[in-house]
Amino acid sequence: MESQKPYVIGVDLGGTNTVFGIVDARGQIVAQDAIKTQSYKTAEDFVEAGVACLKPLIDQLGGIEKIAGMGIGAPNGNYYTGSIEYAPNLAWAHDGIVPLSKMFSDQLGGISVKLTNDANAAAMGEMAYGAARGMKNFIVITLGTGVGSGIVVNGQLLYGHDGFAGELGHVIMDRGPKGRTCGCGRTGCLEAYCSATGVARTAREILSSTDRPSLLRDKDIDTIESLDVSIAAGKGDEVANEIFKFTGKMLGEACADFAAFSSPEAFIFFGGLCKAGDLIMKPIEEAYNNSVMKIFRGKAKFLVSGLMNANAAVLGASALGWEE
Amino acid sequence: MESQKPYVIGVDLGGTNTVFGIVDARGQIVAQDAIKTQSYKTAEDFVEAGVACLKPLIDQLGGIEKIAGMGIGAPNGNYYTGSIEYAPNLAWAHDGIVPLSKMFSDQLGGISVKLTNDANAAAMGEMAYGAARGMKNFIVITLGTGVGSGIVVNGQLLYGHDGFAGELGHVIMDRGPKGRTCGCGRTGCLEAYCSATGVARTAREILSSTDRPSLLRDKDIDTIESLDVSIAAGKGDEVANEIFKFTGKMLGEACADFAAFSSPEAFIFFGGLCKAGDLIMKPIEEAYNNSVMKIFRGKAKFLVSGLMNANAAVLGASALGWEE
Repeated sequence: MESQKPYVIGVDLGGTNTVFGIVDARGQIVAQDAIKTQSYKTAEDFVEAGVACLKPLIDQLGGIEKIAGMGIGAPNGNYYTGSIEYAPNLAWAHDGIVPLSKMFSDQLGGISVKLTNDANAAAMGEMAYGAARGMKNFIVITLGTGVGSGIVVNGQLLYGHDGFAGELGHVIMDRGPKGRTCGCGRTGCLEAYCSATGVARTAREILSSTDRPSLLRDKDIDTIESLDVSIAAGKGDEVANEIFKFTGKMLGEACADFAAFSSPEAFIFFGGLCKAGDLIMKPIEEAYNNSVMKIFRGKAKFLVSGLMNANAAVLGASALGWEE
Repeated sequence: MESQKPYVIGVDLGGTNTVFGIVDARGQIVAQDAIKTQSYKTAEDFVEAGVACLKPLIDQLGGIEKIAGMGIGAPNGNYYTGSIEYAPNLAWAHDGIVPLSKMFSDQLGGISVKLTNDANAAAMGEMAYGAARGMKNFIVITLGTGVGSGIVVNGQLLYGHDGFAGELGHVIMDRGPKGRTCGCGRTGCLEAYCSATGVARTAREILSSTDRPSLLRDKDIDTIESLDVSIAAGKGDEVANEIFKFTGKMLGEACADFAAFSSPEAFIFFGGLCKAGDLIMKPIEEAYNNSVMKIFRGKAKFLVSGLMNANAAVLGASALGWEE
């Protein structure tokens, strides 16, 4: 019966846009539309708008009976409960628990709706359609405003006992008094160094504590972004490359600890920072092999996402739609 | 057919003794014997002696056709290959790969023989017969000469892509220049602080850098062992309790990072140090809840092994014997 349903819905619920895609079994997005995530006061209004956006796409493909299921990737999405829980950056979900899976399912003829967080959705996407095809043990690390992760073990997403496993942006890299403050309220987290904000902060620290020449000095120091560092590094700027080496060292050393945990076949990096290619990937791999336990040395692959230009988040979330 | 085979063999292959147990489906060791692990020059001689030790036990229970399978827990045991690989402390396996599973199977009528490392075997034991019964996500941390770990995720042991996952004694706790040297050749590993040797080292550091009074001063400072610290702490010795607090803080902070990885329901501690009970467990739990991310705070259980007095390693290894 299931095999007669040729499509799934994948939803990338981001802080700005929510993209709805209808995906076939080969991983092609056959129809797509989007709404603004934050234009709604309540979760009910958001779901109503989402369903209104989806309906025409579903109808043009033959109706809801052609849809096997729906998967949603969302910040603070909990796979076990199907709810978004206290998402700080979502106006209609920041101070409570929104049972989003159930709400969409109720409006869509009772189809199965699964929810997970955005980094886990990216990992699903890599496994089904991207750089992790055929792998059973790998870790996706998303380098964006924050640092997120999706961990796959024995071919399964690692959710842990409460659905919140895989917060690798918040392992502590500096336990000393100089550890950087992190958005999570603690100090020294990986995210405080390797997120886009962390990279910009490293740039400001180096520029303000030295008078070394750098292309980055053309910008107002307070508005430097990680993209500026990428551009300058690409032009051979020494300071920019030092910033990448510092960032790569942090990431490589963190991965060395992750290897001691789950010994993955590959670490797959996703997000704007990866567009710098070897300039960031080489320092990561080098730091890893310099610092990891001997039994792991030289074994792990360091890959850039295979879905950077596709709509990875939609594809990843859609993979959840095929789960029974 | 399988259900007609009422027993499995569990083997705890340690640096000194190798214990063979025959275990029934309720987890009772019905027959047991042991040989000295290091009295043999070659792996062949060791296996021959092991089979000679096992034969009478098997025969008294009705012969090899009553045995469903055999499981071995051994240092540097690799589940995927069934081999002991470069085990530094085993005379007949320190510079090569010993295909122990196949060697035993060949001598025992072709029964299935599975091998894993000792900490993983302990985790199997906890899940089948100990403190983790009914749990699907937990971490066993063994505090002995070294610090080992067995990680269970979705009810399965985490082996990683190469069989070497779960080396949590070797995550880096101090990345600074003062990080302690570790047996693995690196510096700052958890094991360098929280193994029996690490605890003794902490004791020596505190005793030699201060002149605070302590029962530990009755001992020659160079021969102090972690057991001496336990005994002194039990008598209310302030320095000894400070050593436990330092050790517990390290372990609790490490567990906070492990939570960000696999969000387990419980951390289960195994080994001599745990005999100090609350004196060590309270500092661990306190440090964990003080340092872990808010979403994990107060959720994890901190337990002492349920198999400390049973032959946990034999039982744990035997659980592997029931696998197909």
